[in-house]
Amino acid sequence: MTDFTQTRQMFDIPDGMIYLNGNSLGPMPVAAPEKMTAFLRDEWRTELIKGWNTKGWWMQTNELGDRIARLIGAAPGTTVVSDTLSIKVFQAVSAGLAMVPDRKVILSDNGNFPTDLYMVEGLMRLKDDGYALRLPDPQDVLDNITDDVAVVMITEVDYRNGCRHDMKAIIEKAHHHGAVVVWDLAHSAGAIPVDLAGSDVDFAVGCTYKYINGGPGSPAFIYVAPRLLDTVEPFLSGWYGHESPFTFDTDFRPVPGQITRMRIGTPSIASFNLLSTALDVWDQVDMDDVHARAVELSDLFITQVEARCPGVTMASPRDPNQRGSHIAFRFEHGYACMQALISQGVIGDFRAPDIMRFGITPLFINEDDILKAAAVLEDILKNETWKEDRFQVRGQVT
Amino acid sequence: MTDFTQTRQMFDIPDGMIYLNGNSLGPMPVAAPEKMTAFLRDEWRTELIKGWNTKGWWMQTNELGDRIARLIGAAPGTTVVSDTLSIKVFQAVSAGLAMVPDRKVILSDNGNFPTDLYMVEGLMRLKDDGYALRLPDPQDVLDNITDDVAVVMITEVDYRNGCRHDMKAIIEKAHHHGAVVVWDLAHSAGAIPVDLAGSDVDFAVGCTYKYINGGPGSPAFIYVAPRLLDTVEPFLSGWYGHESPFTFDTDFRPVPGQITRMRIGTPSIASFNLLSTALDVWDQVDMDDVHARAVELSDLFITQVEARCPGVTMASPRDPNQRGSHIAFRFEHGYACMQALISQGVIGDFRAPDIMRFGITPLFINEDDILKAAAVLEDILKNETWKEDRFQVRGQVT
Repeated sequence: MTDFTQTRQMFDIPDGMIYLNGNSLGPMPVAAPEKMTAFLRDEWRTELIKGWNTKGWWMQTNELGDRIARLIGAAPGTTVVSDTLSIKVFQAVSAGLAMVPDRKVILSDNGNFPTDLYMVEGLMRLKDDGYALRLPDPQDVLDNITDDVAVVMITEVDYRNGCRHDMKAIIEKAHHHGAVVVWDLAHSAGAIPVDLAGSDVDFAVGCTYKYINGGPGSPAFIYVAPRLLDTVEPFLSGWYGHESPFTFDTDFRPVPGQITRMRIGTPSIASFNLLSTALDVWDQVDMDDVHARAVELSDLFITQVEARCPGVTMASPRDPNQRGSHIAFRFEHGYACMQALISQGVIGDFRAPDIMRFGITPLFINEDDILKAAAVLEDILKNETWKEDRFQVRGQVT
Repeated sequence: MTDFTQTRQMFDIPDGMIYLNGNSLGPMPVAAPEKMTAFLRDEWRTELIKGWNTKGWWMQTNELGDRIARLIGAAPGTTVVSDTLSIKVFQAVSAGLAMVPDRKVILSDNGNFPTDLYMVEGLMRLKDDGYALRLPDPQDVLDNITDDVAVVMITEVDYRNGCRHDMKAIIEKAHHHGAVVVWDLAHSAGAIPVDLAGSDVDFAVGCTYKYINGGPGSPAFIYVAPRLLDTVEPFLSGWYGHESPFTFDTDFRPVPGQITRMRIGTPSIASFNLLSTALDVWDQVDMDDVHARAVELSDLFITQVEARCPGVTMASPRDPNQRGSHIAFRFEHGYACMQALISQGVIGDFRAPDIMRFGITPLFINEDDILKAAAVLEDILKNETWKEDRFQVRGQVT
């Protein structure tokens, strides 16, 4: 049984802050500064170039990948970390298209996080061969899986309202129609139980700076189904994916049968160090426990907000199985209200036009935080604090 | 005038080590642990999601790019950092091909660092449209620039023997024949003076973990000529390159007229912190001083090795203007000899079949180091130390 009192102590949250934005950027593990200093001092400084071998830098892509694999229902040897999520989307979709060369349609939905769509648009421009991106409303994805679809690319949990796609249903229909499926787990990994192996997913990608707590811009990951590892095409074919990178041959030969072939270039080892420290927490955690606890806390938050905050309405599904691990509320003056919340140490975020988002992350959030956050929100609404001038000016919303 | 006594004190080299491998992985700046701890404590921990705005994370790609631009003869606003060099090669070559859509030949040379060739091979497979990669010997590049060449992609300094291509001659001939030029500055940036603006280079890419000292796997950079910034195609079109990323539109519109359009996904801010600390040293340095000093030290090393070490022969050009900032020597038993050197604290590296490489990096190497290194090498050869069993076993050579 996961000990959430213990995991909470493993994060360094500023005093007085209730951080409900772990769905955007997770907080820092307490151990991060010490572990990073040890890396700088004992690895980079001391080992220098030898560190690639003596400290295992060369294979950390795979070792960190295996630790993430456990959280997303994947077998060891199927997941590697590196690069950004945008790059991983490109890798997965380009490889998927090559598996269905006679089809020209990529199916996603208009609620997908835009960078996924942008990367596919760039890929289509590059291939310049009649490809089309089909973007129905999220609820119409299933109906749009037809025999002309090459790749279905879906983000499991909607970044705005937290709606969760039915992964099994989409995969089954996609495979039935001969399409390849790419799942973006940006808002799933570390948020909800995912069963990549059991669901027969072809490709999955995700990031580690949200629920996984790897730090700002920490590396992304890619998963490839074991049955595809012999044949999957790494079009972003860097030397890190070469069968024998240190023979320095002029032609590319991907590592046979291994996820290692999806590696590209030389990754940031400092960013791996931070991710490893975050995974030291996750190694002690069971995803089913996390989910059960997140549902408890989410239901408490929903009940509290609905009881105390008239005018604020639920924008996320009420059924916990139909959502991820953040809760979205609509409020006409959501931007100003969120600024007022932040000014009082309750950190959520805002997504246009009127959505206030709150990440429910049991590793460091408990009932007390939830009750306090709801009380602060009630107070802001009651006193119309959000009307203050200082909360009206819109800045960049990250 | 650059103060090399001062810059030497700004790096933390282990006692007794003579580090002649700054051409592979630069050493750690003394300030790195403190700066990183401050970043973790005052930025990630304290600011959390707000850090993207309050700590300027969002534009560090460009600010770091401008600081590198000064070292490579580029104007501010032409260079951004992020991702890996492999990805940057892909970006530059794919954009270059789009500028010459009627041509199908990419010209490089068979001495280029393999990942550049691998990335182009992947790009060609992806485009699947009759492209060919022409790979003459390095000295024959100029003769191979013909009217069918779309993109000339050359690494200025050969990673093995340090030979330097004639950048101006290649650019002039390439432009005369209507080809686009992509320069890889992996062994140039921070090593030799580069004049991207004055040489009318179209694209340049490079890494920051070698001479720049950004740490293992620190981010890469890409330069685009100002005259191309309005029209250059970012095929790896992530949300970081979008004109208005926070409106979350479904279609990609590149930032008009700015290098920012070549950004892709969310970058590692921890890796930016280390790079920034390294650039704190470089901000005090003049590249012409660095080069003059490197030539002095290199000539001293060559003279010493040739006088003291029979059987070891120069593999780099004698003319300093025809080489980068590392010196390669051939020795039949180079692998074992390099292991013996490393065991005595003189760190260079080996490249098959018989090349021992030594990086000459004036920021932290002085005459004393050079003389000691030559003396150790002489001793190893005289006593045939390299014949010891422990130096014969080949491991992975990074």
